[in-house]
Amino acid sequence: MRNFFLLLTAILSCLRNESFGQVSFSQKSDSLTFRHIFDFALTKSQCFETLTDLTSIGGRLTASPQAAQAVDFMKKILNQNMFDSVWLQPCYVPHWVRGDKEVAYAESKGVKTNLSITALGNSSGTGTGGISAQVIEIKNFRELDSLGEKNIKGKIVFYNHPFDESFIDQFRAYGEAVGYRWAGPSRAAKYGAIGTVVRSMTSAHDDYPHTGAMGYNDSFPKIPCCAVSIIGAEKLIEMIHHDPNTKFYYRSTCEMKKDSVLSYNVIGELRGTEFPNQFITVGGHLDSWETGRGAQDDGAGVVQSVEVLRIFKGLGLRPKHTIRCVCFMNEENGGKGGAKYADEAKRKKETHLFAIETDAGGFTPKGFGFTGDTTAIRKIQSWKKLFEPYHIYELNFGGGGSDIEHLEGFCKILCGLSPDSQRYFNYHHAASDVIENVNKRELELGAAAMSALIYLIDEYGL
Amino acid sequence: MRNFFLLLTAILSCLRNESFGQVSFSQKSDSLTFRHIFDFALTKSQCFETLTDLTSIGGRLTASPQAAQAVDFMKKILNQNMFDSVWLQPCYVPHWVRGDKEVAYAESKGVKTNLSITALGNSSGTGTGGISAQVIEIKNFRELDSLGEKNIKGKIVFYNHPFDESFIDQFRAYGEAVGYRWAGPSRAAKYGAIGTVVRSMTSAHDDYPHTGAMGYNDSFPKIPCCAVSIIGAEKLIEMIHHDPNTKFYYRSTCEMKKDSVLSYNVIGELRGTEFPNQFITVGGHLDSWETGRGAQDDGAGVVQSVEVLRIFKGLGLRPKHTIRCVCFMNEENGGKGGAKYADEAKRKKETHLFAIETDAGGFTPKGFGFTGDTTAIRKIQSWKKLFEPYHIYELNFGGGGSDIEHLEGFCKILCGLSPDSQRYFNYHHAASDVIENVNKRELELGAAAMSALIYLIDEYGL
Repeated sequence: MRNFFLLLTAILSCLRNESFGQVSFSQKSDSLTFRHIFDFALTKSQCFETLTDLTSIGGRLTASPQAAQAVDFMKKILNQNMFDSVWLQPCYVPHWVRGDKEVAYAESKGVKTNLSITALGNSSGTGTGGISAQVIEIKNFRELDSLGEKNIKGKIVFYNHPFDESFIDQFRAYGEAVGYRWAGPSRAAKYGAIGTVVRSMTSAHDDYPHTGAMGYNDSFPKIPCCAVSIIGAEKLIEMIHHDPNTKFYYRSTCEMKKDSVLSYNVIGELRGTEFPNQFITVGGHLDSWETGRGAQDDGAGVVQSVEVLRIFKGLGLRPKHTIRCVCFMNEENGGKGGAKYADEAKRKKETHLFAIETDAGGFTPKGFGFTGDTTAIRKIQSWKKLFEPYHIYELNFGGGGSDIEHLEGFCKILCGLSPDSQRYFNYHHAASDVIENVNKRELELGAAAMSALIYLIDEYGL
Repeated sequence: MRNFFLLLTAILSCLRNESFGQVSFSQKSDSLTFRHIFDFALTKSQCFETLTDLTSIGGRLTASPQAAQAVDFMKKILNQNMFDSVWLQPCYVPHWVRGDKEVAYAESKGVKTNLSITALGNSSGTGTGGISAQVIEIKNFRELDSLGEKNIKGKIVFYNHPFDESFIDQFRAYGEAVGYRWAGPSRAAKYGAIGTVVRSMTSAHDDYPHTGAMGYNDSFPKIPCCAVSIIGAEKLIEMIHHDPNTKFYYRSTCEMKKDSVLSYNVIGELRGTEFPNQFITVGGHLDSWETGRGAQDDGAGVVQSVEVLRIFKGLGLRPKHTIRCVCFMNEENGGKGGAKYADEAKRKKETHLFAIETDAGGFTPKGFGFTGDTTAIRKIQSWKKLFEPYHIYELNFGGGGSDIEHLEGFCKILCGLSPDSQRYFNYHHAASDVIENVNKRELELGAAAMSALIYLIDEYGL
């Protein structure tokens, strides 16, 4: 009897191999294509070289001359790669300028201690005379609200909310802390504060202040606001604990100009052979804070996105769908590029299948996050085994990014690349975001991972 | 009927919860312990601080004053942590000295080009006058053998075997290249070469030469040998291609002293409450090349191993088995510490359950590799789900390390921590192996991952 079952199993197994022959072959062939993609990225990629050149322009603050230079440079790179189309997509962007290098010190009992600060993006400046007032340490909004106007009026609020080191994913720590940067100024202004300073959002222990966008609530005075480095925050805490009358002085001449400025998304395209009017988008953002060089945030994403098209072209993979790389403008302090790209897609009634954003740094990729059609996401998840030889294990629900979020509901699946997050916030929005803190191989692996995913989506649809 | 089945399912489900209550509870409790371990490592760890102090001693070449200082320092650290026992385990180690800083240049048509080199560990020097001869580029041993004595005699062989960038795991690229460093000198000496220079084993593009151990075959002359930086290798290639008569000069005064020197493994122990005579070992190596500071290789492993015991103690986890951390001496150029530890364990007829080595850098952990009893390895693999929230997915067959290899067959399971390998060989055995190239969180995550694994092994046995 046992032999009979063995025989039956063998016959069924043969039949199965026959009928599923094509699937087996495809899997083998997909795994080979994956290998070619990773080989190409690791041995023939130009993304690190391009990033080196891009960052040599300087920080690419929206509406700055460097941002304009970066647009020209990326257009040149796309043209050099001879993609099927390359164009600039105009968009109007806000014009915030930093002005002079910021100055700050804390003063206690006649002794002044200099502190490293940076004005927050979009914020008002103090004016050339600076501002000075007693500084009050606030751990969270609950504490702020309980202290109220009586204790806060006329003072400078110091939001000292530490980055939670215990989160394995550092983006969660950022998510928990960033509210103090974004909304903190207006919430303090509501109680009469004349300025705010926020502890930098980082797990690094150094003297770099980390900037980033803030937004005013029009109901309250637009008070100036800045971020202080971790070492600066520690000095300030110590001084306040020794002397509650410690004063904080700072000077910033940043301002939001009245008129917006014409800028551009830079777009390259490989035309699809079967479905040229169905689009797959891969993008990162070209603007950056000018405190650093925008190497990890998000020069890395820009050059990786371009590399995806280079890999397809270099391997002779003619995609069925049209694949676009988009260097989005103004992600950091306005999101006008992302909005414009979605508006145009909708206006032209384009069909968008898949959009992936890479804006979490050029670190070793550990997976992807997906938002959209559940059946399609499950289909993607069924490809998991193909990624595992590349140490990519996470094909999770939930993902995207602010430059593609305007495509939600319009594009079938939105996706975010998830690299290892341990080092990202060491450099994020700080002077340390330079090419020296990008690892060539890690950057290339991210480009390869996205290419492999896009290859499968292009090949099998969603 | 459908309702009946639903009812039945519900009843069975209740019964199942009842009878498997303890298992469910254990899993929950294990996952909670994992969380406590990672929290502790990421918020209360001292390993980065200890590594900063350890590397401030300087490179810790076996038998050097710095290695002796490092022994004292680690003993002090272990004592400060008040582990149950702390002791030095004596072992005799080889005494190789580097001598003067090496000098090298290539000379073509009267023009000298300086090159960054480093003598290989264990090698003979050139003598104070240096050596100079025509240099011949060799890609692999096949090419060497085919050229033979006729083409090689009296020349200096330049092994130009590039690191294969296409390996995802960089240790495989190293494995493929390291033979030219280890065995290359004697294989060239066989054909009458008077010296060798090997292309550094790295994927970094910089001017740091990467040293490492070599071994002479006693049948052939012990010719001097060195490694050249990647930039140096590129210069040399270009010169040879333009002028096959290019000469290579180098000077090194390194030598292997006749007498071995007394040194030590540094060991700390938490005594087991139930099985004090069954041992779990976690270790890294304390010696390092003195070209750099041995931060990633293997200061990281040393401080992570100590941190495992600190985490158990800090969380009040009294282990059932005795857990030892071992700072092994002389891994780099002799392996005498690892051999001594195994010899002593065997001499004392100790029972060794599990030994894990961390000698692949303090980078984000991606898993572990195991060698030994298959059933026990499968048991460990059944714990996979507990590791996934920490982005640890690989519990693979095959692993260990040269400091614990002498325990093979004697210890039930040998294991190696597998961190992300992308950056390791940028720093490996080079002047760039310094604390600035260690990320605090990545280091801590490695310590946490090992602690979590050891916790399960201690709790449930193998």
